[in-house]
Amino acid sequence: MLITSEKNDLIKDIKKLSEKKYRYEKKLFFVEGKNSVFEALKSSFEIKYVLVSEDCDIDLDVEKDRLIFVDKGIFKKISDTVTPQMIMAVVKMPDYNVNDLIKEDGLYIILDEVQDPGNLGTIIRSADAFNVDAVFTINNTVDVYNPKALRSTMGSIFHLPVVNDVPVDKLFEALKRNGVRVLSTNLKAEKYIYDCDISKNIALIFGNESRGVNKSLDIYVDGSFKIPMDGMAESLNVSVAASICLYESQRQRLIK
Amino acid sequence: MLITSEKNDLIKDIKKLSEKKYRYEKKLFFVEGKNSVFEALKSSFEIKYVLVSEDCDIDLDVEKDRLIFVDKGIFKKISDTVTPQMIMAVVKMPDYNVNDLIKEDGLYIILDEVQDPGNLGTIIRSADAFNVDAVFTINNTVDVYNPKALRSTMGSIFHLPVVNDVPVDKLFEALKRNGVRVLSTNLKAEKYIYDCDISKNIALIFGNESRGVNKSLDIYVDGSFKIPMDGMAESLNVSVAASICLYESQRQRLIK
Repeated sequence: MLITSEKNDLIKDIKKLSEKKYRYEKKLFFVEGKNSVFEALKSSFEIKYVLVSEDCDIDLDVEKDRLIFVDKGIFKKISDTVTPQMIMAVVKMPDYNVNDLIKEDGLYIILDEVQDPGNLGTIIRSADAFNVDAVFTINNTVDVYNPKALRSTMGSIFHLPVVNDVPVDKLFEALKRNGVRVLSTNLKAEKYIYDCDISKNIALIFGNESRGVNKSLDIYVDGSFKIPMDGMAESLNVSVAASICLYESQRQRLIK
Repeated sequence: MLITSEKNDLIKDIKKLSEKKYRYEKKLFFVEGKNSVFEALKSSFEIKYVLVSEDCDIDLDVEKDRLIFVDKGIFKKISDTVTPQMIMAVVKMPDYNVNDLIKEDGLYIILDEVQDPGNLGTIIRSADAFNVDAVFTINNTVDVYNPKALRSTMGSIFHLPVVNDVPVDKLFEALKRNGVRVLSTNLKAEKYIYDCDISKNIALIFGNESRGVNKSLDIYVDGSFKIPMDGMAESLNVSVAASICLYESQRQRLIK
């Protein structure tokens, strides 16, 4: 199929997926760029369409009826970036069951009201690198299928379960039932992170860029630690803090 | 002084500072928001002006002739953000001497062609948190006085020397002369980062988001190590990788 008009219904539908409301109505999202599209195709995610520019010479393992050639100009209309990469996949949102994802000895990340899509995506990328079992977002964290968040994951969205907007009670009940300890970073904590066993069987919770973790979650938190900092900066970027904790967890697993 | 017109010469000059060319012509840059302006005022940086909206009720320790009240609408014209914070400082670029900044036992970061201003700013923030002695940028790294980079530093730009666009020869010669080891991360390195002594007397070099450190710098690199990753992601975000190295360095200093 070749589409040359941006008024084509399919193109209009894909364009709408830039908005969260339409993504959830259709249960679809899109990723852009060769790397992300390849990761999508290798994954177990259901790919609805792959869109490529008409002069694309990338060899793609996609059935004919799902491969759509479009006029170059159309990418500029749909794309979230200033210089679109001329390849895009429309992907079905996966259905995850929180209870199935949580097990003893697992390693989890919980994100509470994280607002910046770049931070969210970067945390997912690090979670993938350090073999986290699942990432859960709660309390109006920015949508994981936001184009900028997806871009920052660098394809990691297809490597581990990321569950959006999980009901708080349900999540912590499932963690508790499996004996998973919920830990947070806290500038006032007594212990340094490297003095705590965070090798496995933990869910690390990180909060909003300005306010940190919501006080209402204190009842679920089993303990806290601090990242040692002896400079003048009061805090670290949330994606940096999360990644340092994941590195430390990985280090502890390896030296055991 | 109260300025109500965006056609005012001073306002026009400040607006131009969004562009790198004018920043370096005037040797000035601006920071926005209460936190950054406060950090600027506490620092040894020379503050040319502080601009606040006419209804501002923040108590500022600024001499009368450097405090300028402006019409709210003007902030929207100058500001780099969609929702300007109604307070801004115009600051003189500091003059750093690379030779004076490098000493034995120091901890340095070198950034080689880092392109994303958010990554640059986040690395400066982490460098501040982990007490790095100086950050040096080389080979067309994005300008540190770029408004988005400055915003990501969260005021840390005023806490440690960040030297822009240092001549490569001069930098590595100064490091060598002081016996500072230049180290890089490398996915193919044999040693894990925690098996190397990176507590002090090192300059850690990080490269471009896609291509990594320029091959031409290999001659200056004394050794490399890898960050352990057992997941599927091929690499980490550069600001995350740099921050993990700085955390590990800090951990080693503390457990010594």
